[in-house]
Amino acid sequence: MSKPWYVGYFKGKDWLKNIDYTQEEIKKVLEAAKDLKEKFHKGIPTPYLQGKTLFMLFYNRSLRTRNSFEAGMFQLGGHAHFLSPQDVYTPTLPEDMIPYRTEAISDVARVLSRYGNAIAIRIYGDAAKWFIGRGHKVISEFAKWATIPVLNMEDDVYHPFQALADIMAALEALGWPKDLSGKKFVVSYAYSGGLKPLAVPQSVTLIAAMFGAEVVVAHPPGFELMDDMMKKAKELADQYGGSITISHDMKEAFEGAAFVYPKAWSPRGFFPPYNKVVDKEGAKAYQNRFKNWIVTLGLLEEVGRPYYMHCGPADRGQEVTDEVLDTYEKSLYFEEAENRLHVQKAVMAMTMGEPEK
Amino acid sequence: MSKPWYVGYFKGKDWLKNIDYTQEEIKKVLEAAKDLKEKFHKGIPTPYLQGKTLFMLFYNRSLRTRNSFEAGMFQLGGHAHFLSPQDVYTPTLPEDMIPYRTEAISDVARVLSRYGNAIAIRIYGDAAKWFIGRGHKVISEFAKWATIPVLNMEDDVYHPFQALADIMAALEALGWPKDLSGKKFVVSYAYSGGLKPLAVPQSVTLIAAMFGAEVVVAHPPGFELMDDMMKKAKELADQYGGSITISHDMKEAFEGAAFVYPKAWSPRGFFPPYNKVVDKEGAKAYQNRFKNWIVTLGLLEEVGRPYYMHCGPADRGQEVTDEVLDTYEKSLYFEEAENRLHVQKAVMAMTMGEPEK
Amino acid sequence: MSKPWYVGYFKGKDWLKNIDYTQEEIKKVLEAAKDLKEKFHKGIPTPYLQGKTLFMLFYNRSLRTRNSFEAGMFQLGGHAHFLSPQDVYTPTLPEDMIPYRTEAISDVARVLSRYGNAIAIRIYGDAAKWFIGRGHKVISEFAKWATIPVLNMEDDVYHPFQALADIMAALEALGWPKDLSGKKFVVSYAYSGGLKPLAVPQSVTLIAAMFGAEVVVAHPPGFELMDDMMKKAKELADQYGGSITISHDMKEAFEGAAFVYPKAWSPRGFFPPYNKVVDKEGAKAYQNRFKNWIVTLGLLEEVGRPYYMHCGPADRGQEVTDEVLDTYEKSLYFEEAENRLHVQKAVMAMTMGEPEK
Repeated sequence: MSKPWYVGYFKGKDWLKNIDYTQEEIKKVLEAAKDLKEKFHKGIPTPYLQGKTLFMLFYNRSLRTRNSFEAGMFQLGGHAHFLSPQDVYTPTLPEDMIPYRTEAISDVARVLSRYGNAIAIRIYGDAAKWFIGRGHKVISEFAKWATIPVLNMEDDVYHPFQALADIMAALEALGWPKDLSGKKFVVSYAYSGGLKPLAVPQSVTLIAAMFGAEVVVAHPPGFELMDDMMKKAKELADQYGGSITISHDMKEAFEGAAFVYPKAWSPRGFFPPYNKVVDKEGAKAYQNRFKNWIVTLGLLEEVGRPYYMHCGPADRGQEVTDEVLDTYEKSLYFEEAENRLHVQKAVMAMTMGEPEK
Repeated sequence: MSKPWYVGYFKGKDWLKNIDYTQEEIKKVLEAAKDLKEKFHKGIPTPYLQGKTLFMLFYNRSLRTRNSFEAGMFQLGGHAHFLSPQDVYTPTLPEDMIPYRTEAISDVARVLSRYGNAIAIRIYGDAAKWFIGRGHKVISEFAKWATIPVLNMEDDVYHPFQALADIMAALEALGWPKDLSGKKFVVSYAYSGGLKPLAVPQSVTLIAAMFGAEVVVAHPPGFELMDDMMKKAKELADQYGGSITISHDMKEAFEGAAFVYPKAWSPRGFFPPYNKVVDKEGAKAYQNRFKNWIVTLGLLEEVGRPYYMHCGPADRGQEVTDEVLDTYEKSLYFEEAENRLHVQKAVMAMTMGEPEK
Repeated sequence: MSKPWYVGYFKGKDWLKNIDYTQEEIKKVLEAAKDLKEKFHKGIPTPYLQGKTLFMLFYNRSLRTRNSFEAGMFQLGGHAHFLSPQDVYTPTLPEDMIPYRTEAISDVARVLSRYGNAIAIRIYGDAAKWFIGRGHKVISEFAKWATIPVLNMEDDVYHPFQALADIMAALEALGWPKDLSGKKFVVSYAYSGGLKPLAVPQSVTLIAAMFGAEVVVAHPPGFELMDDMMKKAKELADQYGGSITISHDMKEAFEGAAFVYPKAWSPRGFFPPYNKVVDKEGAKAYQNRFKNWIVTLGLLEEVGRPYYMHCGPADRGQEVTDEVLDTYEKSLYFEEAENRLHVQKAVMAMTMGEPEK
């Protein structure tokens, strides 16, 4: 069977964040994902990674990520190992080593590089000690030492595959225009009692900017995204002809939007490096003041029926009402989830595959 | 390779309980299982589910079920994901949701339906809060929302694949007669200090009735099966020419039996909905009065050497003595375990497969 | 595709310890491993165990073992189940049974023998109650009852696959001589604050003796290997033309060595059967007196730059300094890790495979 053009297109590269790539390169990923999606639905085999092994290291729970990576590898002819940190000697940064229970990331990365073909990692929140950026540091340390591609399955700064799945769903919803220029795309805070990383809103903001959208980042005071991320988003907006603005009013932000992406994240000021200590209780008490940041069917109808987006799992009754998830016709919730499978298969085929000779 | 007739025979159907099917349909499953068993022993490949993924969600421990499903999927050319509830956001009924740790079953079922080809679930006991029927409700909720087949790997009411493996072992032992008509088949309580679900005795009673046996359900007072199950068993006995009777004496029940299936289950009266509260200690104290319900080699010989059956794991020294498991020639213990593999492969090939065009 | 000579060469045999085999037989394993290693690096498929299932039962954490067995099975066309004891009913010796949480090894072994093609087990330390030899007894019990090969993934006496990987790395380093005759090979204690089994130093000592090396076992008083192991090593040295000596001085032992293998293990006198009780705290306090048994770059250079060996994970800053692991040119650390993959694939192909007819 002859292999499509995208197998091995990014051979050997890591995928830590989408902003390491250009819009043109991301579009190649989406083209590959579209091809893989069509083949999946038609039942056409795609054995582009036969004999290849992916090591998946989950420091955090996962439904979509774990199952889409594991099923995706199998659908490509490969195999994925599901590794819990407690099943291995927990791979750890030099400053966090606990003898006999942890193992240096430098060693883990080099050993796994001898056995298989890529390492995928999820780490944020408690697993990264709620020091924002430490999860990304762990993944970067893997990338430094591994001689095989390292894939970011979500850290405390970036969730690149979610953003790829999202931009794919947005473009599909509009019938595959070349980008989102002229489209209002709102990345908004929505209330949850839980503490969630900033990875999703940051990655979605960045990719929407990279695709030329008129991006609005909406949140209550105290829920600012990281300064570097906003700066990078502005650069991308300038480069690709869109814009970035900030709003502190969900409804106002939603008015006339093509897409709204309302989702909880944590107020950064309660966590290092923005705070001296990790103050989870303070963060929860603070965010509990914003329970009115909930998405209802009424709100969506009032603001002009935008496409509803969320990475999942959505906290029902907090971020969004049941009826939005279960009845709103312009919800992309399950399509975004499905696209995780396709974009990940695309990136895996591109980074782990051998191009046709 | 041309596919056998049974691949896709029940395409897209769930397998929550055997009584959703007729005796004729169950016989088709057994025919398929027989074919798969022969091919397994001859080493003939059976790649009937190539590229297909099964999601296995285990709320409870398992040896036979997990390994037979996982090996079975692989032997069919597919792949099974082993999912512990703690590795995902625990899929949960609406009334049991805990934000940030659980995810609505409706969402989990719909997301997994996008990635693969069937969802298999085990849930009973503590995982179902010992409210008898709640485990089955969880699995039914999955079936309601999933767009791919849902398979019951044992809940608190039914264990359909165990019953299929058992009836196959019983028919094999007799040289594959068309049914069990005229054969005395005893489903009996046997003592264990542990608390076990009613799923196995209920499912075995139902399938023995469906196969026309003279079924005796033997147990001390207080170990009644669910009323609906006994009612359904009587209907099946009437329909298929057998009978159902109840006994409160193990030895009397065993006299002249062709098959005895002595196995522990819990006294229902200590658990909702039969009791206001979950009273595990009361249940244990009560069942400790019946330690004499143990199967010994002597007993089996006295009553005429029936085939000994048990789903496993048997509690040695409580339900049965070591020498029965390790030396009794008419024990079907390991054959029943093996048949789990074959009947499950049959049902998976039938529900998940694509029929030849 | 025609199969190489080694597929099925040891069909049906267990691999509990290397000393069940002769030097000639071990050389066959290494030849097979060399072939598999070359094919792995060239990307040549090796589907010698298609449709075969390996059950991996881990009572202890693992990085190298788990990933090399799981990836190895996949690379051979098979599939490995990762089983934690808490996911199954913990397989247990008769004397350790806890009803409803454990299952007799005799039953587990016989059931798994019905579903797949080999059982691999890791058990030592806490999982074996720190009664030295109990882990090996568990694995031997599996081997007694299973009708498929049983593979030792490390117990409290032996770690055969580590020793195979090590001897392969040593021979490779020297350009594949026929054995290690005339080479000084030092198996040395190195300090760690953790409690580690004796399996690695014992298995390495035995295989070095089997390959005719001048073996030195170096350790502080109290760190003696098991008497039976030393006796067997002496027999092998006599048989294969090498020698075994004991040293109590790391540096002196290292002088002029071709290979040094400095690695922590536990002082046996604090554990049964050498002690009446398990005295972990006593063992830790005792071994803390030997923190000077650490390998540094300076030491290696002083003694003549031998090849550095360690099974991994090495406790950095205790057994060895970072710079040895990260910069020493004659370190075989990662090559030993890689060879785990190849020797295990060799033994699996040899024991689980069907020879060409």
